[in-house]
Amino acid sequence: MSLRPTVDFLLNDWLGVEALNQRERFADHSRETFDAVLDTCERIAREKYAPFNRTVDTQEPHFDGERVVLPQATHDAHQAYAESGMLSAAQDYRLGGMQLPYTVEAAANAFFAMASVSIGSGMLTVGNANLLMAHGSEAQRRVFALNEFAGRWSGTMCLSEPQAGSSLSDVATRAVPDGEGFMDDPLGPRFRLKGNKMWISAGEHELTENIVHLVLAKIPGPDGKLPPGVKGISLFVVPKKLVDASAQLTGERNDVALAGLNHKCGWRGTTNTLLNFGEGKFPVRGAAGAIGYLVGQPGEGLRCMFHMMNEARIGVGMAATMLGMAGYHASLDYAKNRPQGRPVGPEGKDPSRPQSRIIEHADVKRMLLAQKSYCEGALALELYCARLVDEQHTGAPEAADEARLLLEVLTPIAKSWPSEWCLEANSLAIQVHGGYGYTRDFPVEQYWRDNRLNMIHEGTHGIQAMDLLGRKVLMENGRGLQLLAQRVNATIQRAIHTPELAAHANALGQALAQVGAATKAAWATANPAEALANAVPYLQAFGHTVLAWIWLDVALAALAAPDSPARTGRLGAMRFFFHYELPKTGAWLAVVSRRDPTCAELPEEAF
Amino acid sequence: MSLRPTVDFLLNDWLGVEALNQRERFADHSRETFDAVLDTCERIAREKYAPFNRTVDTQEPHFDGERVVLPQATHDAHQAYAESGMLSAAQDYRLGGMQLPYTVEAAANAFFAMASVSIGSGMLTVGNANLLMAHGSEAQRRVFALNEFAGRWSGTMCLSEPQAGSSLSDVATRAVPDGEGFMDDPLGPRFRLKGNKMWISAGEHELTENIVHLVLAKIPGPDGKLPPGVKGISLFVVPKKLVDASAQLTGERNDVALAGLNHKCGWRGTTNTLLNFGEGKFPVRGAAGAIGYLVGQPGEGLRCMFHMMNEARIGVGMAATMLGMAGYHASLDYAKNRPQGRPVGPEGKDPSRPQSRIIEHADVKRMLLAQKSYCEGALALELYCARLVDEQHTGAPEAADEARLLLEVLTPIAKSWPSEWCLEANSLAIQVHGGYGYTRDFPVEQYWRDNRLNMIHEGTHGIQAMDLLGRKVLMENGRGLQLLAQRVNATIQRAIHTPELAAHANALGQALAQVGAATKAAWATANPAEALANAVPYLQAFGHTVLAWIWLDVALAALAAPDSPARTGRLGAMRFFFHYELPKTGAWLAVVSRRDPTCAELPEEAF
Repeated sequence: MSLRPTVDFLLNDWLGVEALNQRERFADHSRETFDAVLDTCERIAREKYAPFNRTVDTQEPHFDGERVVLPQATHDAHQAYAESGMLSAAQDYRLGGMQLPYTVEAAANAFFAMASVSIGSGMLTVGNANLLMAHGSEAQRRVFALNEFAGRWSGTMCLSEPQAGSSLSDVATRAVPDGEGFMDDPLGPRFRLKGNKMWISAGEHELTENIVHLVLAKIPGPDGKLPPGVKGISLFVVPKKLVDASAQLTGERNDVALAGLNHKCGWRGTTNTLLNFGEGKFPVRGAAGAIGYLVGQPGEGLRCMFHMMNEARIGVGMAATMLGMAGYHASLDYAKNRPQGRPVGPEGKDPSRPQSRIIEHADVKRMLLAQKSYCEGALALELYCARLVDEQHTGAPEAADEARLLLEVLTPIAKSWPSEWCLEANSLAIQVHGGYGYTRDFPVEQYWRDNRLNMIHEGTHGIQAMDLLGRKVLMENGRGLQLLAQRVNATIQRAIHTPELAAHANALGQALAQVGAATKAAWATANPAEALANAVPYLQAFGHTVLAWIWLDVALAALAAPDSPARTGRLGAMRFFFHYELPKTGAWLAVVSRRDPTCAELPEEAF
Repeated sequence: MSLRPTVDFLLNDWLGVEALNQRERFADHSRETFDAVLDTCERIAREKYAPFNRTVDTQEPHFDGERVVLPQATHDAHQAYAESGMLSAAQDYRLGGMQLPYTVEAAANAFFAMASVSIGSGMLTVGNANLLMAHGSEAQRRVFALNEFAGRWSGTMCLSEPQAGSSLSDVATRAVPDGEGFMDDPLGPRFRLKGNKMWISAGEHELTENIVHLVLAKIPGPDGKLPPGVKGISLFVVPKKLVDASAQLTGERNDVALAGLNHKCGWRGTTNTLLNFGEGKFPVRGAAGAIGYLVGQPGEGLRCMFHMMNEARIGVGMAATMLGMAGYHASLDYAKNRPQGRPVGPEGKDPSRPQSRIIEHADVKRMLLAQKSYCEGALALELYCARLVDEQHTGAPEAADEARLLLEVLTPIAKSWPSEWCLEANSLAIQVHGGYGYTRDFPVEQYWRDNRLNMIHEGTHGIQAMDLLGRKVLMENGRGLQLLAQRVNATIQRAIHTPELAAHANALGQALAQVGAATKAAWATANPAEALANAVPYLQAFGHTVLAWIWLDVALAALAAPDSPARTGRLGAMRFFFHYELPKTGAWLAVVSRRDPTCAELPEEAF
């Protein structure tokens, strides 16, 4: 079974990405060039990633005293990925890129996430380089970003610290000017950094010649104190090995030292590190601190970093989605081949009949259809958001602005929803396998372990919920929420006149109205503590409503296609979502609407 | 933080177990003797189990070519457990037992499940021996059961086969009479067994001198064929090493051979095996096949095995519960000590304030209260069911019969509900820890992995659901369901006149009515295929309704106690369940009531 028909349907029949080639930036592209990229990525993922997914789980990164050792398969996969050109897929031709729409890039990367999420596909490196392209100086772009796009160097994002995980305002890494001439370095204002960074993915390895760290730190004020809050945060580029303005290694190691590897429940193919900056392990150029170059203006660090956050969060959502999808395909294959028991007929069971394959059991079908509904729905959502990114970057001004605002509202869902429900899909994939699913002889337990990370990194579920209810639905006087409602209503209007979909269109309309009412009720007292006390149930209800909308819209595209098993399957998954899932929103919204204080008010000693 | 106050409250203030000592069997017992047992178990669990829970996860059982090697800590823990007398806690004084009520035994064993579920507390051995006490011959009881109670030998249950997991009617292990004098063996009719048994926990190890396997197999008919269906299944006791009628090892190894160790996602402290019976690895006494002794009558094997099923399933539910509880306590401790961020106040956040401990965040409180509500509710349910076991065994005839029938209805919930919701609790415990929860430096990821087994073994979720909706609510003309409704209504009647509980009593009444209506609607066409197509959503809704009842009843006991933080906490957890959880039942029951065919009717090729 291949993912490709689903991707093709969503990209072409549903989103109509081919039409993007009417825009100047994508004028050289066509269905054929898009397909060629997808073909290449599908092939590399199949040959270089999928066969080694268990290898990277069992051969966890380890530090041999000098270097971090990863399996050879990881080196091979990274090399194949870099050689495919995917690291610079979205970049200008003049920079060696393909000028590929982000939608197609995201779809192509989905194959790697499904084959082996933790070998990775350079998402951090691309995000790092994109950030430098947007906010770096000409030299920073040329020296750092271009070598990341080329696969010569890789990149990290260093935000969290041991005492500051989700609370970035408490970042305590300190950056001070590096001597008299610090403003004159060709690579940017040169600082010395000192601090500890936690949860740094790909923070140390030998996959590439150099590692380009992007580091949040604070520049002390005249009183020597770090400015409080997020406004005091600046951004620095800190290479593991120092380089000159022509991008040659100078032969000097920067003072960035591995302080520890994190040993994780899953996602073990990616090194995750605690890094010490400027602790003196590798003293450099006769002064204390790791050398870093300011990116953008002082105090603008978080703004620069968040510029790339939407795409990073879509990337996490896509990873969660594809882990779910991997489990769905694995359990579907198992269910089609494993004989066990007999389905219940009108007269019960007949033990003299031979055993049936388990896909004939209604409850196994339920578990498979739930997975399909979660994962294919999530994939549609991620691709829809990716299409908004393209619209934001290449659409006409008004459409671009709408896309930007819609992305603000949808990103918390794109990140959180697959993290929760495609994890649930992975649990169902285990359940379909029975005892075998719980063993390491089958892949599904690893998908489930790998996927558990996604509710945590790039902003936890709780952070996404606060972002959605505390910021996104309020911004610009609620215009983002209104815009989303318009899109949802447009789908409802098309569906309400389609007999197969009319009832679902009504159900979606009701859910949308309930979300709107709950939003108002949550903020009725204008007290953030009351409004946000149930932000996560709000996020869950909002997410289910968005997914119901996505499914209804996908169903319209499915109905426009000729009859086929795939069409039947899409309509079945849509119906599953409306019958089994959407009704859950009522329970979640009830506590939001009455600003239920049960949790917030329980005193600590009562737990 | 200790579990003990919760156990004490549930046993004494809620269930009033002390009153059991008015029954002849328990006349020598008192609150003091019960407490002494709990004290001992709490201490052994703290000293011999908890410190080694990670050890048994990382030092997985392995086969060195001759024997299965387990960590020394596992040997020490087993020895301490056996020496405590808990293996024979429920047995008669004349057999060296304590004549302890099952309720107290179950509560005492909870401490081991919480400290290290996979080191185990002899549940299988006790279940095996209990089965022999009920169905074995005098010699089988004396030779096998008593030596299991004494801790000298351990026991297994060998049901599943590679081709027959949940479908026991397809068991293909073959048992044929062992020669002319096969009926004259003092240990019972002697057979030769040949077949493969899968998923056998504790199937091979060196913890005890011998292993007593209880094996389901079929005796071929005159035509040499195995009888189809479950009615052809017989039960055999098959020792790993042969013994004589005085329980001495004869020095002969029986032909039971380890064919493989299963490598699991979690629960790694317990060896799980594929065993070959009679494959010729250890030929014995010049004929083919492993020697086994018939227990009970031919064809009665499954009935004998299921005699013990309720207690085994309560045991699984308790294990799931205590894994959830372990995560709750760990994450509560973490939340009380980890500074991170600031809670949202009426004016938002003030970054100049020092960071707060995360228990001050509303969403962290929500995640903690959800865990408390799931796990303490589940513990109450398990102890309630255990109390029914005591009533069944020692109550007056009518009460005993009611207890038996209630147990039939409640067992699928006692097994499945904690398996699902205390697993969710473990996921929340990880989430409270953030990134740290995903590392193996903290215990919560292991609890989550360990707990994933419980929806699979001792009857999957799907099997429990079919049992509940397909058998238990129908049996004796629905009398079990009526009986449960009477108990629920009795609680409602008491609560409806209590101001703090009246609204919840009403909500429970409505949920109960909906479950009743959905049961009727599911069977309205009397077609099992239609009725059972949504058995799992039914199980989920039924379970949530039962838990709401349990919480309401617990709340009545809490309100009767003087004010205290623990009382506030119990009432808070009860409110959480009614506000956040019970409303979910509507979504689950909707598909049951309309016999939604979305899943069952989707053709295989449409997935």
